[in-house]
Amino acid sequence: MMFEKNMKFPILLDTYGSLLTDRKREILDYYYNEDYSLAEISEITGISRQGVRDSIKKSEEELFQLEEKLGLADKNERILRASQILDEITQESSLDKSVRNAIELALKQLNEAEK
Amino acid sequence: MMFEKNMKFPILLDTYGSLLTDRKREILDYYYNEDYSLAEISEITGISRQGVRDSIKKSEEELFQLEEKLGLADKNERILRASQILDEITQESSLDKSVRNAIELALKQLNEAEK
Repeated sequence: MMFEKNMKFPILLDTYGSLLTDRKREILDYYYNEDYSLAEISEITGISRQGVRDSIKKSEEELFQLEEKLGLADKNERILRASQILDEITQESSLDKSVRNAIELALKQLNEAEK
Repeated sequence: MMFEKNMKFPILLDTYGSLLTDRKREILDYYYNEDYSLAEISEITGISRQGVRDSIKKSEEELFQLEEKLGLADKNERILRASQILDEITQESSLDKSVRNAIELALKQLNEAEK
């Protein structure tokens, strides 16, 4: 039986991948981003299929714990939403100039925060 | 010779402390937040003065690396600045109602992101 792919993990991998070991990140990348099967990843890496499976499970647990503790993926999501709302306001041509300037300053901070 | 206290670390400790071991976090908390000396921390914890010193150095390195990789403290700072700017705009009584509503929506996202 295959275990299920959780589509939250590509985002978590993107957010916290730099904290995983190279090997773990590589395997998770094959699995989630390249959509390789466990057997294919086993062949590429020379690790047993069970080893690949265990590595994925462990990495997922690690990523999940990191998000539980730091909430960075959730934070990024909220920054993005706030930016989109503010972006829309700046489309309004009737906007008072000082208000526009202030919103653009706030947006600049958020754009930096999104990086 | 004492080593120097870097005042960035209390913020990093606050941001990433949940990723340190209890012991490391405890020692760093005594050192940075309670302002105990190495000798005092040694007495409280039963670890040698050199051991306390090593633990602090290692933890600082760990916190520094985390910020290098994740940039969460910088992100929080920018979210706070953006919130303050937007908060100020909402003080203006002449603000168009739809603009006000949108800014308040954005602020709600940022307040959640600050948690």
